[in-house]
Amino acid sequence: MRVEIWSDINCPWCYIGKARFERALERFPHREAVEVVHRSFELDPRAPHEARPVVPLIAAKYGLGLEQAEAAEQRIADNAEAEGLAYLRSGRDAANSFDMHRLLHFAAEHGRQAELLDALYRANFAEERSAFAPGRLTELAVEAGLDGAEAARVLADPDAYAEAVREDEATASAMGATGVPFFVLDRRLGVSGAQPAETFTAALEQAWESRTVVPLVTVGGDSVGGDSGGGNSGGADTGGACGPEGCEVPQH
Amino acid sequence: MRVEIWSDINCPWCYIGKARFERALERFPHREAVEVVHRSFELDPRAPHEARPVVPLIAAKYGLGLEQAEAAEQRIADNAEAEGLAYLRSGRDAANSFDMHRLLHFAAEHGRQAELLDALYRANFAEERSAFAPGRLTELAVEAGLDGAEAARVLADPDAYAEAVREDEATASAMGATGVPFFVLDRRLGVSGAQPAETFTAALEQAWESRTVVPLVTVGGDSVGGDSGGGNSGGADTGGACGPEGCEVPQH
Repeated sequence: MRVEIWSDINCPWCYIGKARFERALERFPHREAVEVVHRSFELDPRAPHEARPVVPLIAAKYGLGLEQAEAAEQRIADNAEAEGLAYLRSGRDAANSFDMHRLLHFAAEHGRQAELLDALYRANFAEERSAFAPGRLTELAVEAGLDGAEAARVLADPDAYAEAVREDEATASAMGATGVPFFVLDRRLGVSGAQPAETFTAALEQAWESRTVVPLVTVGGDSVGGDSGGGNSGGADTGGACGPEGCEVPQH
Repeated sequence: MRVEIWSDINCPWCYIGKARFERALERFPHREAVEVVHRSFELDPRAPHEARPVVPLIAAKYGLGLEQAEAAEQRIADNAEAEGLAYLRSGRDAANSFDMHRLLHFAAEHGRQAELLDALYRANFAEERSAFAPGRLTELAVEAGLDGAEAARVLADPDAYAEAVREDEATASAMGATGVPFFVLDRRLGVSGAQPAETFTAALEQAWESRTVVPLVTVGGDSVGGDSGGGNSGGADTGGACGPEGCEVPQH
């Protein structure tokens, strides 16, 4: 079973929702058969690359005074801490997250996506030092077990993994997602928002129970199963196959 | 887009079909958005763990004389070489492949599945030295970029990744696969057997064109998209989310 989680690194509910989902996954009896994949979703693709303090951004976005914006940030921090997550209560900043998403796709190719995602969230929500400081993403890649020089090359080339990020975003949009976190189980079941762990448990159970397989359309053959017949039918031109009884052997 | 390929390492048509698929993928314009995953399929789960020469096995399976079995193996070798694949024309052996599949799942967790799969095929079909010799799988894991000590631990524990192998096999069976290679594109389109590259090209194009998204069933919320509203609706209990207009902020 596959769970895809669309998130932005700048999104506190993604940070919190991930912890809630993981709590549900930890006690899910079939957790070993569950593959979790990060998908990219930029809340603000036009955000500048220079980091800005978060509280004035919140104030501007909601038309709040600085004090109210500060209070809103504290309430989000309360929610994070209730999940056992570290949260920097003052001095958080934010900037464009496109490079982070590109780097997460690079990390996926090297089996380090989960490690990098954790490092990015921690850097963004829990550490004094800005995740957007020069060279910081390369350091975080190294912490996640990636090769620093390779990561730096990916970051320096704005096209690297850009299509993968856009493709994730197009898929989210096609599924009707307008916000994150957005959880999709086996491309059949959706959970929107940082729901309580119990909701994720229910979703995992429902997806597991209903994991009947969609009938396949077959291309280039008569039947879906491989021809597992006598061993001399078919051949290379019709798509050789091996079955429990042996392999097809071309006669020519 | 995701292409899952059910294969057995002992299956020559899987080795050949993989090369044909890769030829199609190489010239597919959206290849960067295609993720390829190996799935486990044991042709003979009860095969002994001790390696045996392949030609007598073929003879016994098809009720052929040794000379005819030898000729069948040579015809498969011709097909492999026509794809540019190295193939050991005499002295090949075979044994139980369960450990190889377990190791491939371990490799997937470390982003090294494609490398290990290539190493296993090469060891099984193209090298004089048996892939089933003691310690050989650990060596191949190291060649694929995995940690040798960790790989040896996985191999020594018969339960490690066993559920993942069984789950792959149950899924193949639920989709009606009786032989391999078996290619499944986005769990919607199936290609059975080592079809010509042109067939894989057609399948990739068809899957890409038709990658409309299945409507999601939503769990724990009213709508599929996150509530991207004003910034003070909802909250933690109803699944906080962030949208383009900002994040929900709990009021309590």
